[in-house]
Amino acid sequence: MFPKNAWYVACTPDEIDDKPLGRTVCNEKIVFYRAGDGQVAAVEDFCPHRGAPLSLGRVCEGQLVCGYHGLVMGCDGKTVSMPGQRVGGFPKIRAYPVVERYGFVWVWTGDAALADPAKIHHLEWADNPDWAYGGGLYHLRCDYRLMVDNLMDLTHETYVHAGSIGQKEIDQVPVTTKTEGERVVTSRFMDKVMAPPFWRANLRGNHLPDDQPVDRWQVCHFVPPSHVMIEVGVALAGKGGYHADAKDKVSSIVVDFLTPETETSMWYFWGMARNFNPKDRNLTAQIRDGQAKVFAEDTAILEAQQRNLSQYPDRRLLMLNIDAGGVQARKIIDRLVAAERAPA
Amino acid sequence: MFPKNAWYVACTPDEIDDKPLGRTVCNEKIVFYRAGDGQVAAVEDFCPHRGAPLSLGRVCEGQLVCGYHGLVMGCDGKTVSMPGQRVGGFPKIRAYPVVERYGFVWVWTGDAALADPAKIHHLEWADNPDWAYGGGLYHLRCDYRLMVDNLMDLTHETYVHAGSIGQKEIDQVPVTTKTEGERVVTSRFMDKVMAPPFWRANLRGNHLPDDQPVDRWQVCHFVPPSHVMIEVGVALAGKGGYHADAKDKVSSIVVDFLTPETETSMWYFWGMARNFNPKDRNLTAQIRDGQAKVFAEDTAILEAQQRNLSQYPDRRLLMLNIDAGGVQARKIIDRLVAAERAPA
Amino acid sequence: MFPKNAWYVACTPDEIDDKPLGRTVCNEKIVFYRAGDGQVAAVEDFCPHRGAPLSLGRVCEGQLVCGYHGLVMGCDGKTVSMPGQRVGGFPKIRAYPVVERYGFVWVWTGDAALADPAKIHHLEWADNPDWAYGGGLYHLRCDYRLMVDNLMDLTHETYVHAGSIGQKEIDQVPVTTKTEGERVVTSRFMDKVMAPPFWRANLRGNHLPDDQPVDRWQVCHFVPPSHVMIEVGVALAGKGGYHADAKDKVSSIVVDFLTPETETSMWYFWGMARNFNPKDRNLTAQIRDGQAKVFAEDTAILEAQQRNLSQYPDRRLLMLNIDAGGVQARKIIDRLVAAERAPA
Repeated sequence: MFPKNAWYVACTPDEIDDKPLGRTVCNEKIVFYRAGDGQVAAVEDFCPHRGAPLSLGRVCEGQLVCGYHGLVMGCDGKTVSMPGQRVGGFPKIRAYPVVERYGFVWVWTGDAALADPAKIHHLEWADNPDWAYGGGLYHLRCDYRLMVDNLMDLTHETYVHAGSIGQKEIDQVPVTTKTEGERVVTSRFMDKVMAPPFWRANLRGNHLPDDQPVDRWQVCHFVPPSHVMIEVGVALAGKGGYHADAKDKVSSIVVDFLTPETETSMWYFWGMARNFNPKDRNLTAQIRDGQAKVFAEDTAILEAQQRNLSQYPDRRLLMLNIDAGGVQARKIIDRLVAAERAPA
Repeated sequence: MFPKNAWYVACTPDEIDDKPLGRTVCNEKIVFYRAGDGQVAAVEDFCPHRGAPLSLGRVCEGQLVCGYHGLVMGCDGKTVSMPGQRVGGFPKIRAYPVVERYGFVWVWTGDAALADPAKIHHLEWADNPDWAYGGGLYHLRCDYRLMVDNLMDLTHETYVHAGSIGQKEIDQVPVTTKTEGERVVTSRFMDKVMAPPFWRANLRGNHLPDDQPVDRWQVCHFVPPSHVMIEVGVALAGKGGYHADAKDKVSSIVVDFLTPETETSMWYFWGMARNFNPKDRNLTAQIRDGQAKVFAEDTAILEAQQRNLSQYPDRRLLMLNIDAGGVQARKIIDRLVAAERAPA
Repeated sequence: MFPKNAWYVACTPDEIDDKPLGRTVCNEKIVFYRAGDGQVAAVEDFCPHRGAPLSLGRVCEGQLVCGYHGLVMGCDGKTVSMPGQRVGGFPKIRAYPVVERYGFVWVWTGDAALADPAKIHHLEWADNPDWAYGGGLYHLRCDYRLMVDNLMDLTHETYVHAGSIGQKEIDQVPVTTKTEGERVVTSRFMDKVMAPPFWRANLRGNHLPDDQPVDRWQVCHFVPPSHVMIEVGVALAGKGGYHADAKDKVSSIVVDFLTPETETSMWYFWGMARNFNPKDRNLTAQIRDGQAKVFAEDTAILEAQQRNLSQYPDRRLLMLNIDAGGVQARKIIDRLVAAERAPA
């Protein structure tokens, strides 16, 4: 259950630096590669000659060459040439709209006529020297919506991430959920708490004391089709919290691009964008390593949850106040899917 | 094909010492844990909130806490509490009758109203200082009834366990099978034979000569739903065999609790109880190591047999005299299952 | 889709030297072993007693003994004996016609009444002191017909085997395909080309210069049910090519026995027979190692192609001139299968 008329993050540019990349997105088997003009390209991962995956081939002078018999495929899905063959009558394979932006490769898996790059969610922190970004990629065997639920309700941090970002107070402070058009925002503000280990490290990373009470916040933004951006941070207590002056806080944006692979598996592009010490590459690496550990804790839970749900498909789950963010986000997803399927 | 109204061995206490244990028994996904009063508890391994397995959580002050969002589950399947939530209306999950006895945790997978701990098969050797017990657990991808067959017909020892407990004479001496109510007994007595390696070691372990003829016996007891206890031993020849004085023999009970996981997989709790040198822990460990090797030889055969039977489901197997124990045991199992399914 | 009334290569003699071999051929689970008179034998890998695979047993004095309860199986599928049992009424299992010839064990998977050893494809290079043979076995998860296609169209060498036997000229020279009865021959002759690495090594192996232009040929012979023999070689340019005198060329036969395991998996017996330096065992080993690397390159492509075809079963593939060999071979296969299925 995912909208196909949408921009999804397919990969990062380094994944196609040296060779084509085969990846399934929204049930579509696609090969991504860097074409002649430096532009990214994406076509079906299926050679029209004998069905070999084009991703096993190579890029020669900007053109994708099948690794089996040398068929040369164009970015538009039309065969360009093949040794000793006239290719005019070869069947076209599907080409996918694809855009490189903000350090990611975005693919549109639905009707190409509707693919407008302007619809790609704006990322204020990308391509901005005041910010630094680090992240990674996990493959999970679960419906991507379980991850939407997970990220729109950070109550789980107390339990799943007890040793890093969890703390008892998350549990105790209620969340507020608002839906604004196609976006959902879930907010939690915890005043005068002690920072957990992850944030103590970041306070030190920004030359602030780590042994004093802080005001902590989490503001989760769901953006269709399945992106979740979470503003997180701590400020020295009483300095204005979320609105505190930059010198009194450390804050960042947890970046989550959730890309469906199939109905029950997903690609999880995770990372963190921060606007303190953006030049400090060691800090970037250190944060990424910390996040990698934290998010690995989620994968075990979510894959086990998926196995349970697959085994008991008829069970109704609870939808509590803490689940409101996920519930609202799923309603938006449902609406988008229904609109796509409606007769024109 | 297994009775659900029955006590099965689910685990050993050490498996739930530190954390909850998720285990499927008779197709039921169950979490086992030690509750507040030291009692064992068992409920569905499915959090009523979002379906996460409760076995990924932890026990806090004797209560099972979901590892995802902190829901506190009671032993009766009713949610006790959840941070920030009223839980009165939460759906109940299933609780399973469970008893710790004889060094095992027993679960009743059927109608809880019928679960009478008095129905747990009495083990005369357990909780008895004159006896020692050592054992282990194997997971097998086969119908547990293939293991019933295996254990109720020890002819296979000659072939499967040629290097340890097998000997040609097993083949040559006929077996006797008797059904007494819900129990089946298969007996084989071999007089004046040389002991195979396993028994020679045990003779030495009991300070008896290992180079003289012995009388050897095997008496297999099937007890529903799927327990097989095998009295085994050797006595110096002519001293009375099975009935010989304790000083002239070594004997023990091979303990086999066969717990269905699914229709084609099982948990095999195997072990040996002995009443000679019960304080000798090295001997216990040595016997267990020997058994572990012997029983691993069965697993390869049984899993391959299961694959063959699954591939050719319509083939009729032979039921020879040596198979009578398994055949009778299966009839009892069939009768129990039919009775369960009959309208009241 | 494979003819069953055919001789397939099942194994090499060394695979049954020490113990029985269980192998599935054309969906038949078969145990191969060396019987009492040194003859090979093949029966269903299914003990009529309890369904254990007979291949887990052993051969005693030329007879196959089940490893579970000691049933002794005859080469004809009739039980010979079993300890303590009368076996006259035991059901027969299927026996398969099997022949050891040319260094391979051949099995007939269809109607035994039609199994005529004279129908085994003659191999002029086998049992001939002027020739040497070396080869190996790969298991592939693909329809064996994808390998027929692969071998009947060597255009792929340019792409799949760029570092060993591939060269650009293969692409540029057209192939000729002829069907003669049940046989298909695809030929390609490349004149005045530089030899690729594999052939340069062989030229040196035959004491010929490796830095001069050569005439190169590839003549692929498809023989039902699924054998492909490829005459390959290079001669110093202008010396007559394929017909050059033995002193001016190196040539050999690429030997490919493609044995279906299931509809989507196969056993690939590959090798090379050569008639230069036949006594040089180091050369045999060196050629085999080179081939092993080359043919491993095919397996990755073919298994990925199979996954693509399984995912998109309705797609029509192209049948170009270079595919004619495979297309013709498949027509013969289709005809054989249709004839088998036709009512008598």
